[in-house]
Amino acid sequence: MSLVVVGSIAFDAVTTPFGERERMLGGSAVHFSLAASFFTDVRVVGPVGDDFGEDEYAVLHGRGVNTEDIEHVEGGRTFFWRGHYEYDLNTAHTDDTQLNVFGEFKPKLSEESKRAENLFLANIQPDLQREVREQCHATRFAGLDSMNLWIEIARDSLKQTISQVDLVLLNDAEIRMLTEQPSLLLAAREVMAMGPRVIVAKQGEYGAALYTENGFFALPAFPLERVMDPTGAGDSFAGGFLGYLSSQEDWTAEASLRRAMTYGSVIASFNVEEFGTERVSRLTREEIDERFEAFRRMTTLEAAPA
Amino acid sequence: MSLVVVGSIAFDAVTTPFGERERMLGGSAVHFSLAASFFTDVRVVGPVGDDFGEDEYAVLHGRGVNTEDIEHVEGGRTFFWRGHYEYDLNTAHTDDTQLNVFGEFKPKLSEESKRAENLFLANIQPDLQREVREQCHATRFAGLDSMNLWIEIARDSLKQTISQVDLVLLNDAEIRMLTEQPSLLLAAREVMAMGPRVIVAKQGEYGAALYTENGFFALPAFPLERVMDPTGAGDSFAGGFLGYLSSQEDWTAEASLRRAMTYGSVIASFNVEEFGTERVSRLTREEIDERFEAFRRMTTLEAAPA
Repeated sequence: MSLVVVGSIAFDAVTTPFGERERMLGGSAVHFSLAASFFTDVRVVGPVGDDFGEDEYAVLHGRGVNTEDIEHVEGGRTFFWRGHYEYDLNTAHTDDTQLNVFGEFKPKLSEESKRAENLFLANIQPDLQREVREQCHATRFAGLDSMNLWIEIARDSLKQTISQVDLVLLNDAEIRMLTEQPSLLLAAREVMAMGPRVIVAKQGEYGAALYTENGFFALPAFPLERVMDPTGAGDSFAGGFLGYLSSQEDWTAEASLRRAMTYGSVIASFNVEEFGTERVSRLTREEIDERFEAFRRMTTLEAAPA
Repeated sequence: MSLVVVGSIAFDAVTTPFGERERMLGGSAVHFSLAASFFTDVRVVGPVGDDFGEDEYAVLHGRGVNTEDIEHVEGGRTFFWRGHYEYDLNTAHTDDTQLNVFGEFKPKLSEESKRAENLFLANIQPDLQREVREQCHATRFAGLDSMNLWIEIARDSLKQTISQVDLVLLNDAEIRMLTEQPSLLLAAREVMAMGPRVIVAKQGEYGAALYTENGFFALPAFPLERVMDPTGAGDSFAGGFLGYLSSQEDWTAEASLRRAMTYGSVIASFNVEEFGTERVSRLTREEIDERFEAFRRMTTLEAAPA
């Protein structure tokens, strides 16, 4: 099965209490692709400028990601983001955003990408997400991420896009904001009523919760001694989650969805241990499986004795 | 086995977006006692004034709580707290505090209470907690709760008290504040290094995490359609947690601690469904066991297929 992701490809400058990087590979589509690549064939769609070179392609190719649909805009520059995190690491503070080629991005998908069975619309303007959705067959599933900005300025468009996908991944605060409903359970059900059958509420350091028609599942974040750089954690989670589902015959089975949540959490936990893509780009399947089992041990609850 | 709790007995006036109560039974020792009473014999120690009457005793006796060590201060008035919650229900805003008899509280324990096998020091001034601790045998375990105020103004005393107990229950923010350590994992280990073998980080709507020497376990809060009044949730959690442990032969076994976390979460989830003690005072063991099983189904993660 193959999985297409459409989103940003970026250079990030990040400062955290534990270090800094002046220019590192980033962007939602990049973090997603690398994470998903451990489970399925991945194609990445997004724009880059002249400053995007061999070193950056090498990171993606190193994980077997298909980059044929990366659009090189002649004379342009790649999306650039500069941000920093305070001591608690929970909030990214943006210091500079240069949209560059991403500002004029009109996704163009090859025939191969249009025919992919599975699709992920990373956080881009919801009209664009819908244009992509309508070009793609996505015969198995389509998922999306979004952000508070689009809920504020393009709520109706976002709701329309949500009605055309199967899975929605948002922060819990965004789910509440979208529905104006303080109970996360009722809020998730409201989003489900728009069309999708799977809602994932990302909860940062508290992990993530999964809502389906009949089920609820929640997983803490993996307990780490040090989080070095949270940038890309959400996209890595999404990549692990949808990448694993893409590899499953019955992606809607509750057991598959729960394992997907766990793989998502595993990859996200590795992602934040170092800066940018540094850790995930040299991650092994063995390390993933080890941490998956650690998660299982950490969350196992035996029945009460009779 | 019996479990003694020392803490506040109060009248609360609470307003939430879903309703209000002008005067209801509350206080940490009350919520704790009711929750623990489903699992073990409970004795409650705390001061009340002339305004504490038959109706209030009836709630405690209705759950079989031993009230012989409730100290009636002649001519005094019971501790009174008035607060409200905003729409998100995460933060209690205090509008009025009248310490009344609680301001002069010097815990006096009967011989029966001193001989109890298990002890919980609810959130009171840490010097007082230590005085109680030193009077009690607590041959099995002693636990404590505290708050940001004591971390700010009585840090050394609190640390000394912590060194004399086996279990510490605090909000995650308080654990970080106490240790000045942003990684909750490292922070929990630092508290453990002070003496206790079990640290529970309470995380409000995200549930709770358990840290032991070799283990980590986390449980989400039970997903509820409506939270009516969060007052007492933390104390109900503590009561379910220590109450269950009090009933277990090997309270230090990882499986016992995990089940205790779950019972704590179960009782807390019932507590917040209505105001004050309303829901827990008519709760049944059958309802508890049902929700325990629901928790197990909600958190079960099957191994990945080979």
